[in-house]
Amino acid sequence: MDKPTEKLLRRFRVEAGKGFRLRDHAPDDTGGLDLDKDGAAEQLQRGVQYLSTQQDMLYAQDRWSVLCIFQAMDAAGKDGAIKHVFSGVNPQGCHVAAFKAPSATELDHDFLWRHVAALPQRGQIGIHNRSWYEEVLVARVHPSVLANQKLPPRLVGKRIWDERLEDIAAFERYLTRQGVVVLKFFLNVSREEQRKRFLSRIEEPEKNWKFSAADVGERAHWDAYQDAYEQAIRATATEQAPWYVVPADRKWFTRLVVVAAIGRAMEGLGLHYPEVTPAQRAALMQAKEALAG
Amino acid sequence: MDKPTEKLLRRFRVEAGKGFRLRDHAPDDTGGLDLDKDGAAEQLQRGVQYLSTQQDMLYAQDRWSVLCIFQAMDAAGKDGAIKHVFSGVNPQGCHVAAFKAPSATELDHDFLWRHVAALPQRGQIGIHNRSWYEEVLVARVHPSVLANQKLPPRLVGKRIWDERLEDIAAFERYLTRQGVVVLKFFLNVSREEQRKRFLSRIEEPEKNWKFSAADVGERAHWDAYQDAYEQAIRATATEQAPWYVVPADRKWFTRLVVVAAIGRAMEGLGLHYPEVTPAQRAALMQAKEALAG
Repeated sequence: MDKPTEKLLRRFRVEAGKGFRLRDHAPDDTGGLDLDKDGAAEQLQRGVQYLSTQQDMLYAQDRWSVLCIFQAMDAAGKDGAIKHVFSGVNPQGCHVAAFKAPSATELDHDFLWRHVAALPQRGQIGIHNRSWYEEVLVARVHPSVLANQKLPPRLVGKRIWDERLEDIAAFERYLTRQGVVVLKFFLNVSREEQRKRFLSRIEEPEKNWKFSAADVGERAHWDAYQDAYEQAIRATATEQAPWYVVPADRKWFTRLVVVAAIGRAMEGLGLHYPEVTPAQRAALMQAKEALAG
Repeated sequence: MDKPTEKLLRRFRVEAGKGFRLRDHAPDDTGGLDLDKDGAAEQLQRGVQYLSTQQDMLYAQDRWSVLCIFQAMDAAGKDGAIKHVFSGVNPQGCHVAAFKAPSATELDHDFLWRHVAALPQRGQIGIHNRSWYEEVLVARVHPSVLANQKLPPRLVGKRIWDERLEDIAAFERYLTRQGVVVLKFFLNVSREEQRKRFLSRIEEPEKNWKFSAADVGERAHWDAYQDAYEQAIRATATEQAPWYVVPADRKWFTRLVVVAAIGRAMEGLGLHYPEVTPAQRAALMQAKEALAG
């Protein structure tokens, strides 16, 4: 990883949550970069290409897995970032799980249950479009969501959010010990930019399908969500499972930060194709002779 | 729960692991009870009946679940205890998962993954015949098991067993916060009693199917296993997720302790059939009128 990119990433990476403040992070930051459309596309392409080669070694080695968690307010660009960053990576080694409202069967289990089932296998990149963090975001902002979770009343106390954050942090620590690289992205869009994107979803016919009136209703809870995100990042950002607070008012910049952050994490694994032992080498030579007839 | 039973259970329950020593627990203890075959069967039957009525309310209420973990050396009586304690409980609300050596797909995930998939739904009793504790027992005693787990080498350090025990304890704490009652049973059989049971598996034709020569080989690792159990109980026994160290040299006594321990835990939940609200009551009356024609 070149120095300017590492310097840029450090600006957005949170490895120690204590004292984190969302207001210190500007949604329209572009890290001093000023790329035109072609320049940004070219740089993104280089990042995707790098991910693709790393992923091939990840798959061949079959030891590590990479879990990328995406969280954001509506219209912050999660789906677009996933599309542009991972198109180009072999889908055999890359799986997206999008989490919506839980089913009745899922509500009959602990909240991690459905997410654990979707964790990536060794050798794979797993992308969770929303995640267990919804349990301390939407569930925290909307009491009705918590009430719907069928918890025994005596377990719903004042400390429930702190307990959930503690549980999530402990579970992520466990995952990193098991060989899962955990990366968490909060796409940080501004309220004003969200408003503009909602308007364009209404005005441009080919974007109509993305629009939901309920999303507009959620804007009334903007500050509560920002608080909930801040608490979540404070309680769960660690060196092993860092958060990236990615400026999301400029889509091209969001994607560059995401692709660079994943590339950096995979570079740190020192991936390589499995080495052939002398015995395997001998077997290869024997097979070659047999094939030569 | 009557006082003598609670006093008996307290003798075998470990709620604070620190300082726990397995040698303080005699495998042939019968807690001063001296029951003949009929007396033991009658008392067991009362316990099973109590479990059955509690389980019916657990199911109707659909809030809590109960996870019973069984761990032991071979021939300690796990299968027999499960059979005798849970026969009589409605199988619709009771599910046994027996864990053997992990499959290739399971090895491609973190070690909790396959166990999480088998966790009981709300309203259910889940019985795990062996469990995630094998990860700090057989994996600790046999280095080849750990080597087979495909962990990236840099994650396999000197603290791996402490880390795993810390992870297990944290995960069980999380489960208890989610409404899962966690009960862990170590059936504590003596080496001599195990020898006798192996011999009877060889000598009695209808028991031959239970015998495996590999089990006898494991006797060479007896002390290593005892140490591993002691460490596991020390690190993971808590008030919320206690261990029961159950004497296992007398099968009738083992089963009485197990059934009483589960009964006690369920009694503590204060289970009752869901109460009918005035609105529901009105709807019931309306339906009754309609049915009356």
